[in-house]
Amino acid sequence: MTFDPDEPLRAIGENRMVSRFRKLAGAALTPAVILGPGDDAAAIRPEPGRLLLVTCDMMVEQVHFRRDWATPEQIGWKAMAQNISDIAAMGGQPAAAVASLAAPSDLPSDVPEQIASGLIAAASEYGAALVGGDLVGSPGPLVIDVALTGWVEEDLMLRRRGARPGDAIVVTGMLGASAAGLGVLQHGIRDDRSPDIARALQAHHTPRPRVAEARAIAQSRLATAMMDLSDGLADDLPRLCAESGVGARVHCDRIPVDPVCRAFAAGIGKNALEMATTGGEDYELLLACPPSAVEALKAAVSARSDAPLTVIGEIVEGRSVTFLDAEGQPVSLGSGFDHFASR
Amino acid sequence: MTFDPDEPLRAIGENRMVSRFRKLAGAALTPAVILGPGDDAAAIRPEPGRLLLVTCDMMVEQVHFRRDWATPEQIGWKAMAQNISDIAAMGGQPAAAVASLAAPSDLPSDVPEQIASGLIAAASEYGAALVGGDLVGSPGPLVIDVALTGWVEEDLMLRRRGARPGDAIVVTGMLGASAAGLGVLQHGIRDDRSPDIARALQAHHTPRPRVAEARAIAQSRLATAMMDLSDGLADDLPRLCAESGVGARVHCDRIPVDPVCRAFAAGIGKNALEMATTGGEDYELLLACPPSAVEALKAAVSARSDAPLTVIGEIVEGRSVTFLDAEGQPVSLGSGFDHFASR
Repeated sequence: MTFDPDEPLRAIGENRMVSRFRKLAGAALTPAVILGPGDDAAAIRPEPGRLLLVTCDMMVEQVHFRRDWATPEQIGWKAMAQNISDIAAMGGQPAAAVASLAAPSDLPSDVPEQIASGLIAAASEYGAALVGGDLVGSPGPLVIDVALTGWVEEDLMLRRRGARPGDAIVVTGMLGASAAGLGVLQHGIRDDRSPDIARALQAHHTPRPRVAEARAIAQSRLATAMMDLSDGLADDLPRLCAESGVGARVHCDRIPVDPVCRAFAAGIGKNALEMATTGGEDYELLLACPPSAVEALKAAVSARSDAPLTVIGEIVEGRSVTFLDAEGQPVSLGSGFDHFASR
Repeated sequence: MTFDPDEPLRAIGENRMVSRFRKLAGAALTPAVILGPGDDAAAIRPEPGRLLLVTCDMMVEQVHFRRDWATPEQIGWKAMAQNISDIAAMGGQPAAAVASLAAPSDLPSDVPEQIASGLIAAASEYGAALVGGDLVGSPGPLVIDVALTGWVEEDLMLRRRGARPGDAIVVTGMLGASAAGLGVLQHGIRDDRSPDIARALQAHHTPRPRVAEARAIAQSRLATAMMDLSDGLADDLPRLCAESGVGARVHCDRIPVDPVCRAFAAGIGKNALEMATTGGEDYELLLACPPSAVEALKAAVSARSDAPLTVIGEIVEGRSVTFLDAEGQPVSLGSGFDHFASR
């Protein structure tokens, strides 16, 4: 089956479009998939002795992505990657995803197909498969929702709850590259010779969730709590603390701010620390572990990844989460994105 | 936490709304749920020796539902019920759902909460739980996407593939009540003293998926193929046949058209058979089985349900699906809904 990629969805029709999706997804199934797209439901062989994990994330055009900023493949990659990051943050292995797309009938038919390619590419990269979906018409913006299942050994599962006073607070990787990428897009910077700008855009469009690192951390049994940084440290750390019933003290000068974020923030006169802690979408891991376990944890991760692990503070008694500057004075950071708050 | 139900989402904010959802869903978890809403992913204990089933269905305001026709609870119920029907159609038992909602910030805050109540009510009714979700802002119409997992014994799973020439074609229940309900709404009929109209509206707004019947059919091992009737027999039977590589002959006078559909069609001068076969959303089961197995199948289902099973035709060699009138002449039925086709 072939069709003109510029033809709108209304000319292709639902059935032909769905057939096309099935072909794409069917070519990239994993051995665990007993039954892929095309029936009432997909069927997957469970991993013996493991818990089933389930998560979902929805993306709306003009809210979460713009089609003049990102290619359809990048939009699909990111929709899948943020779900993969959630499964990783539980210590789990991603397995099978379903994706729903609401699309206006005048959308060129190659757009949903390329979104599907991006979804499948990200799933494949992390050992998962796209096993089904739904395609519906909509008068409104393009909406993509991905639900992802995964598996984790019950005794290795890492929740947000579990951090204890005295624990070290650790993050993987560097923070702020995605926020810098968004800033580049918002400022209309188009210098594609700059490797820094290319890296910032890549971090923003095609984030690489920390699956191998999270599995190594879970298998080490050294962490007490973990989550992924999707909204930014300033929003996410208070969530981990609230779930654990603890407070936290973060030493801002220890936060691994990505050099590309520092450079971009300097260029536009913004605060790099604030960008790195409130911009979100880094999909790095945030975890707690006893201070005595930090070196062993670093060794466990370094066997599988070159992502740095950085201690940025400590869990404390109480409920308050404070960010301190080099002199030990509290720093006020902005807050991340509220989907409904007036601003 | 309390708030004025008329306050728009923007006044409540994302975090408070999400807390409210978690409370609602958290109060209706099942024993299999190890970890409910509030972490990066939910965790569910698998059923030993069973395959994991996964499905999803998206609903868009003005396309799949209208808020002046259905209450938010009904919208939520239907969003969950159509997923439950898909898991049932595989012979499976529904287990754990995640639901994403895209909502404009001026939406009254009680609407998403009541949608969640409807989702949870339908899940609970069929032994499943809502274990997580996503709430995002959108400039466009309300969009609800539900992804549902379930479990099925590998040797009991019923696919669309498997029907063989000579098999009887069987449907559960009566067809067309949901289409009649939609017709009542489209024609603005407001006679709430009529039990027929109330029943048609109930069929349309709060369909009852055939979980117990489907499990009985799967456990009987007598059916060769099965699916649910979501788009209507005229569209769905060709799909089952295409997957099975067979054709079908349906005797239209044997199709169990619901009396409320006949009465409504007569009232507006429409063809009741066409309404019942193309209207869709009945969420009855369509299956094939050897003719010799029909009585045993009926007995297996009647032990658990008073839903009638009706033989409406037979699977034949070839690829053509024909609907015949009482004289054996082919009948032309309209086709169901294409989300993108111009009409």
